[in-house]
Amino acid sequence: MGREHMILGAFFFNPQGDNRMSWRHPSAPGFEVFSFQYYRDIASLAEAACLDALFIADHVAIWDTYESNVAHYANARLEPITVLAALSAATRHLGLISTLSASYSEPYNVARMFASLDHLSGGRAAWNVVTSGMNEEAMNFGRDATVEHAHRYERAAEYLDVAKALWDSWEDEALKLDRESGQFADATKVHRIAHRGNHFNVRGPLNVPRPPQGHPVIVQAGSSNDGKNLAAAHADLHFSMCRSVEEGLAYRVDFNERLERYERAPQSLKILPGIQPVLAASAAEAQEKREILDSLIPERLGVDLVSSWCEMDLSGLPIDGPLPDLPDEGSYNGQRTNLARLKSFKAQNMTIRQVARQLSISGAAPVVAGTAVEIADFMEEWYRAGVCDGFNLMFPVMPEDLANFTYHVVPELQRRGLAQSSYSEGTLRDKLGLLRPANRLVLER
Amino acid sequence: MGREHMILGAFFFNPQGDNRMSWRHPSAPGFEVFSFQYYRDIASLAEAACLDALFIADHVAIWDTYESNVAHYANARLEPITVLAALSAATRHLGLISTLSASYSEPYNVARMFASLDHLSGGRAAWNVVTSGMNEEAMNFGRDATVEHAHRYERAAEYLDVAKALWDSWEDEALKLDRESGQFADATKVHRIAHRGNHFNVRGPLNVPRPPQGHPVIVQAGSSNDGKNLAAAHADLHFSMCRSVEEGLAYRVDFNERLERYERAPQSLKILPGIQPVLAASAAEAQEKREILDSLIPERLGVDLVSSWCEMDLSGLPIDGPLPDLPDEGSYNGQRTNLARLKSFKAQNMTIRQVARQLSISGAAPVVAGTAVEIADFMEEWYRAGVCDGFNLMFPVMPEDLANFTYHVVPELQRRGLAQSSYSEGTLRDKLGLLRPANRLVLER
Ligand SMILES: Cc1cc2nc3c(=O)[nH]c(=O)nc-3n(C[C@H](O)[C@H](O)[C@H](O)COP(=O)(O)O)c2cc1C
Ligand SMILES: Cc1cc2nc3c(=O)[nH]c(=O)nc-3n(C[C@H](O)[C@H](O)[C@H](O)COP(=O)(O)O)c2cc1C
Repeated sequence: MGREHMILGAFFFNPQGDNRMSWRHPSAPGFEVFSFQYYRDIASLAEAACLDALFIADHVAIWDTYESNVAHYANARLEPITVLAALSAATRHLGLISTLSASYSEPYNVARMFASLDHLSGGRAAWNVVTSGMNEEAMNFGRDATVEHAHRYERAAEYLDVAKALWDSWEDEALKLDRESGQFADATKVHRIAHRGNHFNVRGPLNVPRPPQGHPVIVQAGSSNDGKNLAAAHADLHFSMCRSVEEGLAYRVDFNERLERYERAPQSLKILPGIQPVLAASAAEAQEKREILDSLIPERLGVDLVSSWCEMDLSGLPIDGPLPDLPDEGSYNGQRTNLARLKSFKAQNMTIRQVARQLSISGAAPVVAGTAVEIADFMEEWYRAGVCDGFNLMFPVMPEDLANFTYHVVPELQRRGLAQSSYSEGTLRDKLGLLRPANRLVLER
Repeated sequence: MGREHMILGAFFFNPQGDNRMSWRHPSAPGFEVFSFQYYRDIASLAEAACLDALFIADHVAIWDTYESNVAHYANARLEPITVLAALSAATRHLGLISTLSASYSEPYNVARMFASLDHLSGGRAAWNVVTSGMNEEAMNFGRDATVEHAHRYERAAEYLDVAKALWDSWEDEALKLDRESGQFADATKVHRIAHRGNHFNVRGPLNVPRPPQGHPVIVQAGSSNDGKNLAAAHADLHFSMCRSVEEGLAYRVDFNERLERYERAPQSLKILPGIQPVLAASAAEAQEKREILDSLIPERLGVDLVSSWCEMDLSGLPIDGPLPDLPDEGSYNGQRTNLARLKSFKAQNMTIRQVARQLSISGAAPVVAGTAVEIADFMEEWYRAGVCDGFNLMFPVMPEDLANFTYHVVPELQRRGLAQSSYSEGTLRDKLGLLRPANRLVLER
């Protein structure tokens, strides 16, 4: 199951781009981010460049703990699985990666949605399984605050066990539709899963036949210990954050050890670090682009952003002063990777204002600014060094940075034989060099 | 808000048609019912004939209480909201009615899906709100048996209160996207709903701006007392079952009284009885079509079907003998309308075999078999008598009966000025003559 080229996926959370304030950028889209047309154009760009997938991130809340949040960045957006189902009708090859939280939904419903999307798209569905860590999310589902970190991951692991069993509940050959004999299905190949666990009791079978890919591609993003273990147990793709070749190589070694514990081969998990590619003809132009983005964040929003990451209100502190003492891991309920980033900012003596700008840029993905050749050089180095199987492309401003990337960087990568110039046939799994999973319910008999 | 023509919607539960054994019919589709192409063709047929909507019914389980069920009729099918989201990209005017159960899902997630579908489709989303009554469904969601009837409806009413409040949580004018000032949204127009009820605690706001229709069209189907009260409180469309003009008129009078209790005008709820139109050149041809369908149901499946409706195992009884004594309403947990039908079959002294055939035909919708002129006559009579605002078209065999209807009956209805020959502009609400709902959160201030 080789894969000859880099895997390239285009990512967004805010439909206007990965910078939090991208909506305010001069070339950002307006109200059309709430219409289908906008997503169709993005998908067309991605498919014309033979990118592997479109990856939509998601939360199940708006960020509104502080008053400034709604005023300046109430990250309203459409729900990913409906967007990707609509896009399945307008694309032919593109992988469709939808985020869906395992914390506040039912495995039967979610397994069904992804099975349906996989059938509708001819085997192009992928599920980014996340555990929701925001208090704002918890409060939309009957809780006062988010569920404890370890507990969220324990639930997610059981959730995936249930979903996979449901996808396997119809064997590949179960559906007969034999008009002559009146046999709709071979009843010996349709299984109740009879799952009884700590979090779920689900009888099954699913009411959708086994998806074309067996299981939709499973994606996990985020690098906490629990997150990585979930990926090692269950995922096909892992989205990482990594800052150097050395860090990336060590990360891969660590993952291979985790995979071995689950008796999985290293190639069965593809690792895709996030990068933020920004095309710029010169260092000066790159700096100028960066300054435009930096200028977009209102001061008050910046302080409130840092406050929410720190889990304490910083509005009384001087904005050009240092960060306060940070909580320790045990008492911190947000994402572990966020806390680690804050600690490194504090170690660098960054001011609250500087941290705010850093956080507004987006996640921890390195900005790779330069000419098409320079960006391709960077990507080639990481890829050839064995740091990764490809990249998760997190464009600061959409669709502009995506369009620039597909027009200029992709052809450069194709010239070097690093990126595919046409799609291969088959399902998303086939295209990515992932095996179609065996049916566990059959294996267990 | 007048509507000059009949409202016509094409319905299916089984993708092969409303007869349970339709999959076995000589002209039924095969494995393609699990591909997008099949649904796109159906939607194209419907849209070419200017039908108002495509309505997909759903359960969250397969029917598998008896062994024969899976073998002969394991009603596997795709999940409706993903199918309709995909169809939104391939249609322009067609209303998209998706069933989604309020019994086993979270209002925040579901309100979001429908809001997204409404945005993606330019205001064509509709939600058939059902309460799941099958034990097979309950067992996929951590229960041993279905929730008690009244309790399901109480939950559904609260569910709709929450969903509507979430759709209203962004006022129509809340979204600003003012790049100059940095104002994303007017924070005074984005509301937490702070719902605390018997079934749900949901803070809000939703993370999707108010849908184009304000609220997606709300549909309710089924004629129990609780079901009708839910419709009177919340629905825009009601799918009924009715056997004569007299019954239909009385039904309308009863509904108008219920609406009045909620201070709603009669026109604010459109009533669409189900009919099963079967085009046939002569009485003999109609009879022949009927006999083909009757011949498709295996004997064992028939007995098991009647058993499951009766909530007792009838396999020990003679198939050509009478029905046993039936449970009374208090101890019957399935659909009330099903029990009522069984009682009327018993009153007619029908045998188990006869009842099985009757039940396999589908729901209680009258079969209207005849020439295009005869079918149009029937529809015209009901419509002009004021029985209904249009029809829910339940085709025994898909896509054949749908195609025949659009090619022959629709033109006849159009000639008589009863059916529209082109779509009017606007959202589905506009097209159906339904008002865009006022924002309750604004009204309450
Ligand atoms: C590339 C990337 C994409 C992510 N997308 C989402 C997302 O869409 N929704 C979400 O709730 N979390 C998302 N996360 C957060 C992770 O799922 C995870 O919660 C986070 O990285 C912190 O790790 P931890 O929760 O394991 O501590 C993403 C993380 C990364 C690196
Ligand atoms: C036209 C029509 C369509 C229906 N569609 C569904 C459906 O898709 N899913 C479902 O669970 N029930 C469906 N029902 C069942 C009703 O929602 C309702 O449960 C049933 O009519 C019995 O009424 P009761 O539950 O109020 O007793 C439908 C009923 C009718 C008449």
